[in-house]
Amino acid sequence: MERIPLAEDLLECRDLIRSWIHRTPLLSNRSLNTISGAHLWFKCENFQKVGAFKFRGASNALASSSAELVENGVATHSSGNHAQAVALAARIKGVPAYIVMPRNAPEVKKAAVKGYGAEVIFCEPTLEARESTLAEVVKRTGAHIVHPYDDYRIITGQATAAMEILETLEDLDILMAPVGGGGLLSGTALAAHYFRPGLQVIAAEPKGADDACRSFKAGKLIPSKNPQTIADGLLTSLGQRNFPIIQQHVNEILTVEEESIVQAMRLIWERMKIIIEPSCAVPLAAILENREKFQGKKIAMILTGGNVDLEKLPF
Amino acid sequence: MERIPLAEDLLECRDLIRSWIHRTPLLSNRSLNTISGAHLWFKCENFQKVGAFKFRGASNALASSSAELVENGVATHSSGNHAQAVALAARIKGVPAYIVMPRNAPEVKKAAVKGYGAEVIFCEPTLEARESTLAEVVKRTGAHIVHPYDDYRIITGQATAAMEILETLEDLDILMAPVGGGGLLSGTALAAHYFRPGLQVIAAEPKGADDACRSFKAGKLIPSKNPQTIADGLLTSLGQRNFPIIQQHVNEILTVEEESIVQAMRLIWERMKIIIEPSCAVPLAAILENREKFQGKKIAMILTGGNVDLEKLPF
Repeated sequence: MERIPLAEDLLECRDLIRSWIHRTPLLSNRSLNTISGAHLWFKCENFQKVGAFKFRGASNALASSSAELVENGVATHSSGNHAQAVALAARIKGVPAYIVMPRNAPEVKKAAVKGYGAEVIFCEPTLEARESTLAEVVKRTGAHIVHPYDDYRIITGQATAAMEILETLEDLDILMAPVGGGGLLSGTALAAHYFRPGLQVIAAEPKGADDACRSFKAGKLIPSKNPQTIADGLLTSLGQRNFPIIQQHVNEILTVEEESIVQAMRLIWERMKIIIEPSCAVPLAAILENREKFQGKKIAMILTGGNVDLEKLPF
Repeated sequence: MERIPLAEDLLECRDLIRSWIHRTPLLSNRSLNTISGAHLWFKCENFQKVGAFKFRGASNALASSSAELVENGVATHSSGNHAQAVALAARIKGVPAYIVMPRNAPEVKKAAVKGYGAEVIFCEPTLEARESTLAEVVKRTGAHIVHPYDDYRIITGQATAAMEILETLEDLDILMAPVGGGGLLSGTALAAHYFRPGLQVIAAEPKGADDACRSFKAGKLIPSKNPQTIADGLLTSLGQRNFPIIQQHVNEILTVEEESIVQAMRLIWERMKIIIEPSCAVPLAAILENREKFQGKKIAMILTGGNVDLEKLPF
């Protein structure tokens, strides 16, 4: 598929991956409503398989591919949730997965990827090494590359989280998601555009990795140079296919301080008793930094994942 | 009520407190099933109001009391979840709550109790000081004492967690709960006895606070002397009213090592992405220490609460 996904693509994807994924719960919490002054719902992709929304996109990439396209397997480079997502989706599809990971990736993530039966190929921890190693792997194996976000199948898969929210909540003012590469945000924006026209879509991004906000304002892609944030899932810069969708269908991109991210993360841990990655907390941080703007509003946000290193918590 | 609760008492309580409490979710997790070799369900009282099952008992104590009995309010001493539970239940009932807390209780717990509108009275951190201060408070106010576990209304309230499990799961081999004072365990055992006769009830207890196991074997109450465990909710010794019920209706009490508690707690955090107190992890620790015994069994266990100090984690 090499065009912006249509409403019918999203609907088809939803049915296609239904048996692959978990339909995750949508939680609310009275004390966070009181603290924020808004009505909040949290879509818990931390409870998704592999612990992150990334499994939706990877499932769609594999489920929608012809047997021929992936007969030699699939390949990607990732140190994070996309690696596990592709590994598990490939296992379900019954094809090999080749995952290029930097040598210094956390042992627990390497073990998880191997646990899903993927072949892990280590490389130096630079983008160049990752890309050249991936190219070698593809040359050797004939595997099909699945990009973590700059891929319409991935965008379509990630859209299903928002579709589930809209199926559940009829009355909503704002839909929020964090933005890194833009896979989740572009999918979320398409879902809102097709299935709840007029619904506001607001993205949130760390100030220390604000390429999406700057690109959005400039009207052209401005990749991050040396981004720094505790929200490690949001270090990547916007993808080519993601940006035009975001430009057209997202209402606003807010940036937040690191301190607000840690505060919001801690609030979710303490009040909701659920484990989320720092990236998840960025939309709530934006609400807490802009209380008046969100006062009394009905807001759903996507909690992107729950894979944190318990030995390196920010509190 | 000064007799062991009957089946009709439990049913009446369930209806009485339905609108006071959350019906908490019962979660399962494929990877914990694989690791344990059993089929596990987790009753998530960490998602209960005030973050712990204790709110069930306190709700029943307040909801079932006549207006006259509690017209001068209710009082208790507690440094933990029972304090918050009584404070919130009293607020719902519309009567004052007087909570005696040791001076050295965590600030966050003091603030939470005050946040529910209770009057907090501080005392020295000894059982003697707590009891004498409580007696003074009662003398001054005429408040009615609500004991944390040695009270049939509390036992009946805690039984509703197991009742909800049995309403949901028709096919079950074993029901598990941790044991401290015995409020939850005696309620759980009564629910199993009345509503699923023949269902095995197995308790789990830290080796460092094993008065329930020793009392169970000796056939008489043997309180703990200087108990030590990370599972701080289980430091208390069995109550007078709890012990006979446990003796009659619990099949077995297993004790576990501290190391197993931390390991099981970490597994639940990492695999289920939910926040639980160390006490919650004791039944899973018992399963992991006794794999063969539990192999292939269908087991439901109660996760008691989620109020942990994020700055003092054991990992």
